[in-house]
Amino acid sequence: MDEVACLDPRCNPTQFFDLDGYEAIVHRNAGGNIRHALRDVLTLDRAFELNEIAIIHHTDCGALTSTDEQIRSHIKARVDKEHWAEVDAIEWGSMVNVEESVKEDVEWFRANPLVREELKRHCQGFVLDSQTGKVQRVDVE
Amino acid sequence: MDEVACLDPRCNPTQFFDLDGYEAIVHRNAGGNIRHALRDVLTLDRAFELNEIAIIHHTDCGALTSTDEQIRSHIKARVDKEHWAEVDAIEWGSMVNVEESVKEDVEWFRANPLVREELKRHCQGFVLDSQTGKVQRVDVE
Repeated sequence: MDEVACLDPRCNPTQFFDLDGYEAIVHRNAGGNIRHALRDVLTLDRAFELNEIAIIHHTDCGALTSTDEQIRSHIKARVDKEHWAEVDAIEWGSMVNVEESVKEDVEWFRANPLVREELKRHCQGFVLDSQTGKVQRVDVE
Repeated sequence: MDEVACLDPRCNPTQFFDLDGYEAIVHRNAGGNIRHALRDVLTLDRAFELNEIAIIHHTDCGALTSTDEQIRSHIKARVDKEHWAEVDAIEWGSMVNVEESVKEDVEWFRANPLVREELKRHCQGFVLDSQTGKVQRVDVE
């Protein structure tokens, strides 16, 4: 199993899925954004033929607090204008709603032409409640 | 502190740096590749003003076992030709030598125009020995 989770210390899948750390490979990035984990999923799938993917976002996530435009403006304010195109090129992955962002990520993954068909069918999304530590599966059509 | 480490279960910075999990934010991707963590570092730096970055790769890493070309060929073999450009566009991050890859990542980070100058000066690289669990700092000019 491969898990894609936010790097927030509260969002640690080995804890809330009660894994020993060796049962799953855990990719962690800001937000638990699947787009930024695609390279990893594809290389791991090539090496181990993954049987399952879990995408986990969490309530009270930092990615819910700013828009992409706010992040871009903030960084541009201290970066030379000749590098603004590089700032614009980055998908910052801001979220508006945590459940929606999980849904979008699962849908994006299932629609991605580089992902193995069988793996697409075994992709699930979850929301972690940062207060209670409980994880809920998100229904995706 | 922000740490960028490989997602291999053996390469867990909270273990080998003996952290309680809340002292550092840990990004984990295949190889511990800094290029694929740049978005995270920039957004975290914007939110928290990071004081330090540690890049940690490890011996016996999966990223040492294939070249980018091998990964591309493998994926292209099962993907429709119209999507091969997407496969080519991904920086797969294969390594030839783990110490060299750490050096290159630190140098790449320090040369990146989007990173805050002070943070560049507080970027260090490490190699974890997967057998002994010992971590060694890599000297970078």
